[in-house]
Amino acid sequence: MTDLVRAHPRLLRQSIREGRHTGPTAGLSRGWAQANLVVLPRDFLEDFLLYALRNPIPCPVIDVTDPGDPEPRLAAPGADLRRDLGRYNVFRDGQLTEVVDHLDDLWTAEMVGVLLGCSYTFERALADGGIPLRHVETGRVVPMYDTNIATRSAGPFSGPVVVTMRPVPTPLVSRAVQISGRYGMAHGAPIHVGDPAVIGISDLDAPEDGDPPDVREGEVPVFWACGVTSQRALLAARPPLAMTHVPAWMFVTDLLDEDLATGIPLQPVAGGGRGRTRESDG
Amino acid sequence: MTDLVRAHPRLLRQSIREGRHTGPTAGLSRGWAQANLVVLPRDFLEDFLLYALRNPIPCPVIDVTDPGDPEPRLAAPGADLRRDLGRYNVFRDGQLTEVVDHLDDLWTAEMVGVLLGCSYTFERALADGGIPLRHVETGRVVPMYDTNIATRSAGPFSGPVVVTMRPVPTPLVSRAVQISGRYGMAHGAPIHVGDPAVIGISDLDAPEDGDPPDVREGEVPVFWACGVTSQRALLAARPPLAMTHVPAWMFVTDLLDEDLATGIPLQPVAGGGRGRTRESDG
Repeated sequence: MTDLVRAHPRLLRQSIREGRHTGPTAGLSRGWAQANLVVLPRDFLEDFLLYALRNPIPCPVIDVTDPGDPEPRLAAPGADLRRDLGRYNVFRDGQLTEVVDHLDDLWTAEMVGVLLGCSYTFERALADGGIPLRHVETGRVVPMYDTNIATRSAGPFSGPVVVTMRPVPTPLVSRAVQISGRYGMAHGAPIHVGDPAVIGISDLDAPEDGDPPDVREGEVPVFWACGVTSQRALLAARPPLAMTHVPAWMFVTDLLDEDLATGIPLQPVAGGGRGRTRESDG
Repeated sequence: MTDLVRAHPRLLRQSIREGRHTGPTAGLSRGWAQANLVVLPRDFLEDFLLYALRNPIPCPVIDVTDPGDPEPRLAAPGADLRRDLGRYNVFRDGQLTEVVDHLDDLWTAEMVGVLLGCSYTFERALADGGIPLRHVETGRVVPMYDTNIATRSAGPFSGPVVVTMRPVPTPLVSRAVQISGRYGMAHGAPIHVGDPAVIGISDLDAPEDGDPPDVREGEVPVFWACGVTSQRALLAARPPLAMTHVPAWMFVTDLLDEDLATGIPLQPVAGGGRGRTRESDG
């Protein structure tokens, strides 16, 4: 059996495309960046890109396909966004209508795919840095909350900033800010530390998405901007058809987590980055 | 006489708008971020934003106006991009045709303005960090070079990555990388350190733009991505009409230099950021 934790993303994507791996992607192809996917009609692209550029912390764009082309040439040359994710949400007129396992029929010549950085990148770094992640330890989904912070709108796209919350032991809060802050293309540093009421969250035990948290004595709630912000904006814009990844079934790129901190190298390595390795591959 | 070095950007922009300050902006409104300006027809906007998103190190977008609206609502509420810069380059069909001091007649309802982060932000930080800046000391323009690194194209926009070069004393190179690397929205860390030939520069004394450098014994040439990259792409795309700032006559924003490192705050301060101060204002 292939060790998907250590597998190159190309092998993991192939496994997903061929239906051999059907589960979530968290922790797989360790060290390579995973991404949120938003697919929408090209008529909506300009406003969506404006929206993302005006809200880069919740919506960090890492690649955009050409219309009709399902290959993300920068993030994963050779990949196929129609088939390389395990599950997709389908939205019609802003409403979630179905969950599908490929987009062969839905990805018409009018559709474009946008990849956005994802919290898995900084979570890996937090874990490597000795910051415990309660929702991982307990096998829960990280809680997500709407805040009273409005995004900067663009055309029909608007809505609240959505955040994830992770409880951090008080002595480690500064360290967690510094570690995650390096990953500017994966939500970066927390946008709030401490009292949830300050950002409009009245009850930590009632997240809009994910599982209720388990905040213990001596821990501080720490809030990071979340990619679900872009899904809220998509609901507001109500395109006739749009698709996204299903949370936890992410797109696995050929970019390193480090690329989302230091920037994607300007001079592509021969072979579109495929020859790049991590230290642990050596 | 107003001390423009310490002036709030609002006052400096007013001085420029009223023709009282007509010179370059380097060193003025210290601590506030200055920006490159690209104005182009909205038909070209989507491809230009794609181009910028695919090349965020040379082309870091910090604000985009709505079509026809000359106010950069995020970067400087109340400002007028038609009048708040001292000089503008006008390009017709990709050729520089004239230099003007306002855009009142050229900024039609079809035009959009894009602001891009600028090297002044990291140069201020380098100077504060004890890194000598030869071109500043000698009153020259920083040298700019085309490289053999291609940008990632989008629609009609393509071209080489353009870099600036600053000689750095060998013992300070690592420090210069670390300091500038914080400013991800102002070109970030150098894209190359050392031998110019590696990035296709055969003669350091013959820059495409700016003045020849003065690299001395014990100094290493260090290369940063440059906003002129976007002007090269504009020449390639040949829009019927486009305008840019004139190098050194920048747009002065209400954003702090620090905002281009840490990110523009998600929750705008009351008054659109106008109430924000720097430590030295206290």
